[in-house]
Amino acid sequence: HEQDIATIMLAANETLVAEQFALLIEALPQDKRLSVWATYPEETQRAAFVDMGQGTRTSLIQALSDEECFDLLAQLDVDDVIEIAEEIPSRLLKYAIKSLDDSQRKLYQQAQQFSVDEVGHWLDYNYVRISEKLKITSAQLLLQKGLSPYTEDFYAVNKEGVLTGTVDINSLIQSDGENTLKTLFSPEIIKLNGHDELTAAAEAVILSGKMSLPVVDENDHFLGRFTVETAYQVKQETQTEQINSAAGLTTDEDLFSSVRTSAKNRGIWLGINLLTAFLASWFIGFFEATLQQVVALAVLMPVVASMGGVSGSQTLTVIVRGMALGQITEQNRKVLLRKELKVGGLNGIIWSVVIGAITYFWFDSAELSLVIALAILLNLLTASASGVMIPAILNKLNIDPALSGSVILTTVTDIVGFVVFLGLGSLLLL
Amino acid sequence: HEQDIATIMLAANETLVAEQFALLIEALPQDKRLSVWATYPEETQRAAFVDMGQGTRTSLIQALSDEECFDLLAQLDVDDVIEIAEEIPSRLLKYAIKSLDDSQRKLYQQAQQFSVDEVGHWLDYNYVRISEKLKITSAQLLLQKGLSPYTEDFYAVNKEGVLTGTVDINSLIQSDGENTLKTLFSPEIIKLNGHDELTAAAEAVILSGKMSLPVVDENDHFLGRFTVETAYQVKQETQTEQINSAAGLTTDEDLFSSVRTSAKNRGIWLGINLLTAFLASWFIGFFEATLQQVVALAVLMPVVASMGGVSGSQTLTVIVRGMALGQITEQNRKVLLRKELKVGGLNGIIWSVVIGAITYFWFDSAELSLVIALAILLNLLTASASGVMIPAILNKLNIDPALSGSVILTTVTDIVGFVVFLGLGSLLLL
Repeated sequence: HEQDIATIMLAANETLVAEQFALLIEALPQDKRLSVWATYPEETQRAAFVDMGQGTRTSLIQALSDEECFDLLAQLDVDDVIEIAEEIPSRLLKYAIKSLDDSQRKLYQQAQQFSVDEVGHWLDYNYVRISEKLKITSAQLLLQKGLSPYTEDFYAVNKEGVLTGTVDINSLIQSDGENTLKTLFSPEIIKLNGHDELTAAAEAVILSGKMSLPVVDENDHFLGRFTVETAYQVKQETQTEQINSAAGLTTDEDLFSSVRTSAKNRGIWLGINLLTAFLASWFIGFFEATLQQVVALAVLMPVVASMGGVSGSQTLTVIVRGMALGQITEQNRKVLLRKELKVGGLNGIIWSVVIGAITYFWFDSAELSLVIALAILLNLLTASASGVMIPAILNKLNIDPALSGSVILTTVTDIVGFVVFLGLGSLLLL
Repeated sequence: HEQDIATIMLAANETLVAEQFALLIEALPQDKRLSVWATYPEETQRAAFVDMGQGTRTSLIQALSDEECFDLLAQLDVDDVIEIAEEIPSRLLKYAIKSLDDSQRKLYQQAQQFSVDEVGHWLDYNYVRISEKLKITSAQLLLQKGLSPYTEDFYAVNKEGVLTGTVDINSLIQSDGENTLKTLFSPEIIKLNGHDELTAAAEAVILSGKMSLPVVDENDHFLGRFTVETAYQVKQETQTEQINSAAGLTTDEDLFSSVRTSAKNRGIWLGINLLTAFLASWFIGFFEATLQQVVALAVLMPVVASMGGVSGSQTLTVIVRGMALGQITEQNRKVLLRKELKVGGLNGIIWSVVIGAITYFWFDSAELSLVIALAILLNLLTASASGVMIPAILNKLNIDPALSGSVILTTVTDIVGFVVFLGLGSLLLL
């Protein structure tokens, strides 16, 4: 392994990008991490500590002494502290908060007034707020301080801290007037409210085409800004969560999480899946007598279930995406349901004919062929309807359909598939 | 529906963001799109046309006359033309290219020298290139032109167009020297090569913490820059593709794509799935005699298959993510395989005991209980090994494991699960 580490460290020194160190640590087995970590410069350690996944950070905290952790936390910015606040032990969090200076601690407390699902919790506090009273020439001098990344506007506030206008940096640079800033205000302020839901706010920033939007409270006081960088990170995390949850990974798992952590994390989902699998088995159990007499039904069961599952997931994915983009309303849901039923029906007809034909040639039974064809058609129609309706129902129950829709849907299509197939078999084949 | 449209248009006018109009069009049934489209200002139409999904754009092109399409295409930037080039009919593409001015057409041709999987195809050509010979004061005057979004550096080139240095805009603003630009060059140039693989380049920009990186050819000639915005879009599209492909959606489907388009798009995947399902059925078929005598095996089959499928998907997802982040090497794959086998084994032992116990109480048969317990354990071990090895094999074959790994994996776990379960059943229960 010493050789692996050498290879990895060589790659690291070539790329020279602090944030990649976090990924490299994660790529190492747990017992090798500390020795590589110790080779990092202090600043890199700090950046990597904030940047790494929760699982990796937790393993590192366990390996380091509390004093070493305190050293890492002592010089973090408020943004970093907010980012890792929910993911580090409370004794470390307390220390990190204590180490902030007064103004930063105020910003931390401001962020805590918003839940982690609200945009107000995740603001960027880099320098962008200026007084509306400034003369243009004085504002131009402020540019000398340097611009933070993702800055194309200054946000002007009045004495009370109320956001009164946005000033485009490019107009500011080009202007040579002695006027007050107000003459440069953009005709309209596009802004977010701190209580706006985080993913919706992220979508809004991305769609706005701006690099950041100002965020205000109920009384229009300027709180900070929300950058397109954070917005993309939010969107990406939402998608990653969706991919993970579709696979049955409940929390952010690290490549080299301990066997115990990984097994526990995944075991929970295996347990949930087991419940739904036994539920399906229970339904199949009602048809034991039929299965005994027509064993071909048992042979073909997976075909009915998996076609329904795939078809339902297709509809579900299209609908969940539409919901995430705010495209689905009460009104167009009915139109969508009709459309999806038509798609399910059309594919149902085509594939039930194909499957019926294969079954006929395989088992030489027209009745069995009819039974499976009907079961496929009905299951694909059920799958289409479920794919539209399950997310709607989950949404009403405040459950995220992107995360739990899939397991519920396949439970439905499995059970309907088995019951219809074996039920029709009992009626027509016995 | 007139009411829906009124609601949607009202929302549109409130948000005032041109890019959202594309989403709104997609949220409308196809026969309503044209009447809403006609109400958009020309500039909004142009932005929305580029921004919308391929399916939506195709439906719109079909509804509009060629002259109307030409009007939309006549004033596009080269970036926009490159973005939609693969997705519009060739007569429209030809017109769009013809409408570019000479310098833009050269950039279009430059982009065509790189494949769509290479970063050189997707560059940003906004104004960031300056001559290395400039005096600092002249370069400062260039700021008056205004900065493009995502600009924090100018890229300095020599007479031959070779990238010789990057100049941080903030240092440029603050500097008051009469020196040449070279005194402001950053100590190191972090740059990409035009032939770099697109997703790797995207990851590099995101990790670099910069808003954009310069891109050069083999001879270090400056080609353009790659912004973090494009990088995030690439990453997002990759993830969306992964979500879609996991659900069996082969191309970018629009919410209101015609029934025929949707049915065809999804039917292909249903067909592939049918092959794998029948393959599983074929294996089950070998055990017809066993199933006839021990019908409880048929009842419990879904439990064995679904536990293996879930467990394998969990491993696969962790591995695919690690591969996307460049964390998996030849060396640590073996360590990972061992780890995943331990996780699979641990969960295998736990859940085989649980499942064995439930089976014992349900069917009152110690032998059946033993058979299913062993089958679960073996299938979970197979699933773990497959989850690590299938992506490695696909990668060697140049097949993207994020897209096709899942269907191959569940085929393996289904077949292994059925064969082990029914095979053990034949040995121990007959």
